[in-house]
Amino acid sequence: MIKIYGKNCINEAIRGNVDSLKEVFIEESKVKEAQKFIAMLNDKKIKYSIKNKAFMDKEFLNKHQGYAAYRTDYKTYELEDFFKTKKCAKRLVILDGIQDPHNLGAILRSCDAFGIDGVILPKNRSVAITEVVAHVSTGAIEFVPICYVNSLANTIRLLKENNFWIVGTDASGDASFSDIDKKLNLAIIIGSEGFGMSKSILKDVDYLLSIPMVGHVNSLNASVSAGIVLHNLM
Amino acid sequence: MIKIYGKNCINEAIRGNVDSLKEVFIEESKVKEAQKFIAMLNDKKIKYSIKNKAFMDKEFLNKHQGYAAYRTDYKTYELEDFFKTKKCAKRLVILDGIQDPHNLGAILRSCDAFGIDGVILPKNRSVAITEVVAHVSTGAIEFVPICYVNSLANTIRLLKENNFWIVGTDASGDASFSDIDKKLNLAIIIGSEGFGMSKSILKDVDYLLSIPMVGHVNSLNASVSAGIVLHNLM
Repeated sequence: MIKIYGKNCINEAIRGNVDSLKEVFIEESKVKEAQKFIAMLNDKKIKYSIKNKAFMDKEFLNKHQGYAAYRTDYKTYELEDFFKTKKCAKRLVILDGIQDPHNLGAILRSCDAFGIDGVILPKNRSVAITEVVAHVSTGAIEFVPICYVNSLANTIRLLKENNFWIVGTDASGDASFSDIDKKLNLAIIIGSEGFGMSKSILKDVDYLLSIPMVGHVNSLNASVSAGIVLHNLM
Repeated sequence: MIKIYGKNCINEAIRGNVDSLKEVFIEESKVKEAQKFIAMLNDKKIKYSIKNKAFMDKEFLNKHQGYAAYRTDYKTYELEDFFKTKKCAKRLVILDGIQDPHNLGAILRSCDAFGIDGVILPKNRSVAITEVVAHVSTGAIEFVPICYVNSLANTIRLLKENNFWIVGTDASGDASFSDIDKKLNLAIIIGSEGFGMSKSILKDVDYLLSIPMVGHVNSLNASVSAGIVLHNLM
């Protein structure tokens, strides 16, 4: 089970996976403004309770703004699911070791916005899907299929066998966005916060993009970099 | 005075504004690996102290990783400075009410990366420049001139008088990146996290961009959105 908080997150859970909601909590000070929301919960037969601020603050992170819920864990997928479903995946994202829940949440939001069919995470080198991730994703997490894999190298091999072209990003890259045929099936690797893409998979990449920069610090936040790449390959 | 932490932040302060550093603190467990860093501090005559973990954890946020410093407050600029300097500003960013220090830090990092000459913040509707902002910017804050203004409406008027074209972003926008002549002087407005651009300044905009999205949630994290706009107008 996972705790989620914030009205956006709950609304998206209702929209995307209504059966996942075990119980919704509304802070008593919000009941008056929440009449429509409560009517909807009744309509959809979703269990809810009215609670005082002390309960909400203790049970949920203090950004709940009066709304929170218990939700079943997010469903995860197998890699094969991305090839077998009726609507075959065309755009996948591989997150190569993202550690910050804010970044993962923001990236999931971008993945939803830019039509990514699935996100692949290495099992042992990724931040867990926590309530912070769900909150920062503003509920986008309900709509982006997530798959954990043991080995990125094996995953990339399997993706290539299934007609995916692999796109990496690295300061050493020599490809630009216009070099990439947007009609191809693409699996786009986003590097980790501190270290970028793993050196061990650099050789497996079909296109190595670099984002031109002119500044002093010469690197971007991982979720910003992901957003730029996904937008420009949409 | 502001506390900064993390080796990147301190290195960028040394590179950009060495006189701003009042005292650097190194955790005793790091002294062995920090020999080169300490030699540089000696070389540049920067005061430093070796401290135990308890002091570091108490004095600085727990992400210091063994390095922190006291720094003078960041210098801010007047709007007129952006027109009067020898290298006149060509690209400015207006942050219309950003509230989250992570977003402000990530946006400053993008502003440095994409050659923005200055960032304009409304005095009463912006998150303060805290140690978190500095840290998330990974030191980019040392290189991006910041200006606080009382009124965005007056600021936009003054920018137009100084040959700036105003670019906004909003889901209702009808301009795309290719509509905008990159040779123009541009002032780019980034909306706030919850509310986007202020309705009161929508009418003052020369180009209203929208970023095409296909998902369910249909909005992006503010720093991701800023990164996409700045990259595509570079």
